[in-house]
Amino acid sequence: MGDLDVAAEQTSGRRARGGGGGARRAERTAVSFETARFIERNIPNFEILNEEALQIIEYNAETVLEEIGVNFVENEAALRRWRDAGADVRGERVHIPRGLARKLCSTAPSKFTQHARNAARNVDIGGNGLVLAPVYGPPFVRDAEGGRRYATIEDFRNFVKLGYMSKWLHHSGGTVCEPTDIPVNKRHLDMLLAHMTLSDKPYMGSVTEPSRAQDSVDMSKILFGNDFVDQNTVMTSLININSPMTFDGIMMGALEVYASNNQASIVSPFIVGGAMAPVTVAGTLTQVLAEILAGVAYSQLVRAGSPVIAGAFVTSIDMNSGAPTFGTPEASHITYGTGQLVRRLGLPYRSAGGFCGSKLPDAQAGYESANSLNMGLMSGVNFMLHACGWLEGGLVSSYEKFVMDADQLGTLHHLAQGVAIDTNGQAMDAIREVGPGGHYLGCEHTQANFKTAFWRSEVLDYKPYETWEDEGARDTQALASARVKKLLADYQAPDIDAGKKEELEAYVTQRKASMPDAFM
Amino acid sequence: MGDLDVAAEQTSGRRARGGGGGARRAERTAVSFETARFIERNIPNFEILNEEALQIIEYNAETVLEEIGVNFVENEAALRRWRDAGADVRGERVHIPRGLARKLCSTAPSKFTQHARNAARNVDIGGNGLVLAPVYGPPFVRDAEGGRRYATIEDFRNFVKLGYMSKWLHHSGGTVCEPTDIPVNKRHLDMLLAHMTLSDKPYMGSVTEPSRAQDSVDMSKILFGNDFVDQNTVMTSLININSPMTFDGIMMGALEVYASNNQASIVSPFIVGGAMAPVTVAGTLTQVLAEILAGVAYSQLVRAGSPVIAGAFVTSIDMNSGAPTFGTPEASHITYGTGQLVRRLGLPYRSAGGFCGSKLPDAQAGYESANSLNMGLMSGVNFMLHACGWLEGGLVSSYEKFVMDADQLGTLHHLAQGVAIDTNGQAMDAIREVGPGGHYLGCEHTQANFKTAFWRSEVLDYKPYETWEDEGARDTQALASARVKKLLADYQAPDIDAGKKEELEAYVTQRKASMPDAFM
Repeated sequence: MGDLDVAAEQTSGRRARGGGGGARRAERTAVSFETARFIERNIPNFEILNEEALQIIEYNAETVLEEIGVNFVENEAALRRWRDAGADVRGERVHIPRGLARKLCSTAPSKFTQHARNAARNVDIGGNGLVLAPVYGPPFVRDAEGGRRYATIEDFRNFVKLGYMSKWLHHSGGTVCEPTDIPVNKRHLDMLLAHMTLSDKPYMGSVTEPSRAQDSVDMSKILFGNDFVDQNTVMTSLININSPMTFDGIMMGALEVYASNNQASIVSPFIVGGAMAPVTVAGTLTQVLAEILAGVAYSQLVRAGSPVIAGAFVTSIDMNSGAPTFGTPEASHITYGTGQLVRRLGLPYRSAGGFCGSKLPDAQAGYESANSLNMGLMSGVNFMLHACGWLEGGLVSSYEKFVMDADQLGTLHHLAQGVAIDTNGQAMDAIREVGPGGHYLGCEHTQANFKTAFWRSEVLDYKPYETWEDEGARDTQALASARVKKLLADYQAPDIDAGKKEELEAYVTQRKASMPDAFM
Repeated sequence: MGDLDVAAEQTSGRRARGGGGGARRAERTAVSFETARFIERNIPNFEILNEEALQIIEYNAETVLEEIGVNFVENEAALRRWRDAGADVRGERVHIPRGLARKLCSTAPSKFTQHARNAARNVDIGGNGLVLAPVYGPPFVRDAEGGRRYATIEDFRNFVKLGYMSKWLHHSGGTVCEPTDIPVNKRHLDMLLAHMTLSDKPYMGSVTEPSRAQDSVDMSKILFGNDFVDQNTVMTSLININSPMTFDGIMMGALEVYASNNQASIVSPFIVGGAMAPVTVAGTLTQVLAEILAGVAYSQLVRAGSPVIAGAFVTSIDMNSGAPTFGTPEASHITYGTGQLVRRLGLPYRSAGGFCGSKLPDAQAGYESANSLNMGLMSGVNFMLHACGWLEGGLVSSYEKFVMDADQLGTLHHLAQGVAIDTNGQAMDAIREVGPGGHYLGCEHTQANFKTAFWRSEVLDYKPYETWEDEGARDTQALASARVKKLLADYQAPDIDAGKKEELEAYVTQRKASMPDAFM
C-alpha cells in the first residue's frame, strides 16, 4: 500500500474516531498529502535525429524567420521592439535576420525554480527535471455516473482537490476544466482562488486577456508577498502560438505581463500536423523551431532573463475525417526531435501529456495515453502539461482518467530512476544464497528491498481472478471511479494563513463587482 | 482506409457478386491478405546502462557460472557435453570456467532467416530487425460475448486466422492458445497443421516433449521438403529456462532436436522478478545473462552454428499479493538492459510483448500493453513473442485484445521508420507556400504526402462525438469485437499444394492413431 493511501486511511480513521465538529476542524489543518518530488532523470534522453538532420532543420528554421518571417498581430509595441532589435518589419510581418532570434534566446535561463506556497512543493523546471501538471482547457467533464456534461466551478474545484491529493503530480495546473457556469471575464478569478486555497502546489496564471494575467500577478502578490513575486517565479503560464507563424496580440499581451513581472511563459506552438504545420516531420520541426525562436526571443525583448519554457503541443490529423489523433508515431517523432532542438537552445522543454482521442477512459485511452506519456519521458520533457485527466482530444476532463493517468505517472518516476549498480543492486549474495532451483521470495536481500523495489499501482487490478470476479468484475473505469469518490471524501485542504485567504477572497469579490458579466 | 480493409472489402464484394459455390471456391485461392515486411529500425536503441555497469554485470555473470554453476537436470548427454567442453561437472551442477560460455556462444549466427512457405513472408531475425509474433500459451480464451472459457482447437484456428489477416503481424506464432479439447500428447499435431494450412506466415514448433519437437521437424519436412529443412531454418521454438539457473531435461531435449536439425531455439529465462530472480534490476540482469550464456552455449555444443535467439520473459511481482505485474518500470529496466547485454554477445534478442495483468481488454490493458510494446521497440528486441492477444497475465488469449494490439503494432512500424530528412521531408516549399496564418490542408505538399504521412488505426475511434454517440457510444472492446467478426467472416485460406496438405493430414492421423489419449 502506497504512502498516499496510508495518509488517506489515517485521515478517515481519525475522523471517524474524532466525532464532532471541533475535532474535524482541528484535523483539517493536520493532514498533508504526500507529493513526490519532481522527477530528476537518471536515464538518457532518446535522440532520434542525428547531427546532420539537426543542422539542416536549424538552418531551415532561420531561413523561415529571415525570408518568410512571422506575424505579430495587433501589437504595435511588439513591432517596435522587433524593429529596435534589428528585424526587418513590413506591416505586421517581422523578418528576423539569421542568428538574431537565437542570440536573443540566449538570455533566457536554462533552468528556474517555480515556487509553491508550500516550499516543499517547489519545482525546478529545466535540466534533467520533469514536472508533471494536469489537463488544461476542456469545456466538458465526464464521470462514470454523470456522463459527459459542461464543466462547472464545482468540477474545477474537484479536479484541483484530486490534483492536490495525487502523489505523482507536482503541479496544480491552470484551467483543469472551463467553469462554464461563471462569466468568461470573471472565471479566472475563481480558478486562481481555487488553486491558491485548495492546493499548495504550484499553479498557472490566466492568459485569456492581458488584464487577467495582471489579476494573476496581483493575486499571487497577495499570496506570496509583493517582494517575493518581484524576485521569484511563482507562475508558469501557457502562451500558445497560432501556427503557422502567427503571434496574436492577446496572447502576446499576456506574455508581456508575465515576462515583465519575471513570471514564466510556456511559448508553445499548437500543432495539428498536416493542418497548422507541414505533413512531414522534418518540415513540422522546422516550423516549430522557427516559432519557438521568435516567441522566446520576443519574451527576452520584453525583459531579458525572464524565465520561459519552449516546446510544442503536437498532434497529427486523421486525413479521412480531419480529426486530431493522439499517441501516434508521428507525434512521437516530432516530440523527440523538438526535445533535441530545444536542448540545443539551452531552454526548458514543454511537450507531451496523457493524450488520447477516445471518448471514454477505455483501452484506446490507455494505449494512446501510455504511448504519449512514455514518449514524453524519453524525449526529455521538463514540463508536461496534460499529464492526467485528458479525454476526447482535450474536449473533456475525465474524473476517472485523471486518477488513472495520475497513477501511471508513478511509472515515469520509477523509470527515470535508472538502474542502481551498487553492491545491493548487484545482489550477488542473493544469487549465491538462493542458487539453482531455489526461489528469492524469502531471501534476505528480497526482504531488505521489496518495499521499494517495484512500483505498484494504486488503481489497477492485481487480484486473483476469483477475487476480482467476486468483487464485481470491475473494469479500470469502475476501479478509478471508486478511487475518485474516496479521494474526494478524504480531501482536506492544506493550511493557509486566514488573513491571506480573506484578502484573496476580497480581491475576487471586488474585481467581480467592477465588471459586467460576459459569457462570450 | 488501410490496405487490409481494402483487401477484405474487395473479397466481400466479389463474393457477393460471385454467388454460387463454384465461384466461391475459385476465390478462395485468389485472395492474399497484405502483411507488412518485418520492421527494420531506422532509429537508435535506448541504452540505459553505461559501459561500467555493463562490464560489472558481465563480470558477475561469469562469476555465477564459474562459482555457483547451473543445473542440467535429468540429462546425462548434456552433462557429458559440458564435461567434454571443459566445464567442471559435479552431479547435475555444471560450473563453467570464466570465458568458456561466451566463447561457445560466438559460433551462433548474429542474424538468420526464418523461412515461411510463402517466401514473401520470410523474416530476418537479428540486426536492426523486429519480428512480431502473437500470444503464446494461454489455456483460456475470452471474447466480449462468450466471456472467459477454456480454449478449444476451434479457438486456436480462429487465432491463426486472425494472425494471418493482421497486416502488422509477421509471424503465426506457436501455441496461440492451448486447445484443451485435444489430448495433451496429440494437440501439437493439430496446432502445427493449423499454422501450416490456415496461414502462410512463419511458425513455431512444439517443445513440450522431444518427440513432439521431432514431429514438428517431420511435418515441416513434408511442407518444405527434406533438403530445404536440412539447409534452412523454418521454425523458431520457445525454450524456457527454469530460473534460477535450471535447465530441465524435457526443454533441453526439445532444444537438442531443434539445434541438431539446424532449427532455431529461443533460449529464454522465465523471470518473475523477486521470485525467480533477485528483486533488484542489476541482480536480475546478472542472472539472466548467466542463464543466456549457459543455454546458448549448450545449443552450440549440440551443433555449432545452429541459430538461436537469446532473451528473457520478464515481469515483476506485486509484493502485496504475489501476483505477476506487467508494463511496469522495473520490467522496462530489465528489458532495456538485457537488450544491451545480448547485443554485446552478438545474438538476436527476444523480449517484451503486449503484456498486461488486466482481466479485461480495458484501460489497464491499454496502459500496460502500450508501456510494454514501446519498451520492446526501443530496447532493440528482434523477436517479440506475445505482441498481440495477451490478457490476464498470459492466462487468457483475448479475441478483442488480439485485434487491438495487432492494430497498435502499426505504431511500432511507423516509429521505427525514423525521420526522413530529404527535400520532401524538409517541406520548405510548403512552408513558403502557406506562410503565416495560412493552413496546410490543401497545399501541394500535403496532397502529395498525406496518404502515407500518418499511421492510421483500423480499430480505434476517430469519429466526431455526435457520430460516435449515434452509432452506439461503443468502447474499444465493442469496436474490436466488430472487427474480429468481420475478419473471421472475410477469412480465406492461403493457397496450398493439395498433395502436401493431404500428406500433412495423413501424418497427423497416423501419429494420433499410434498413441493413447493423454490429458495430463
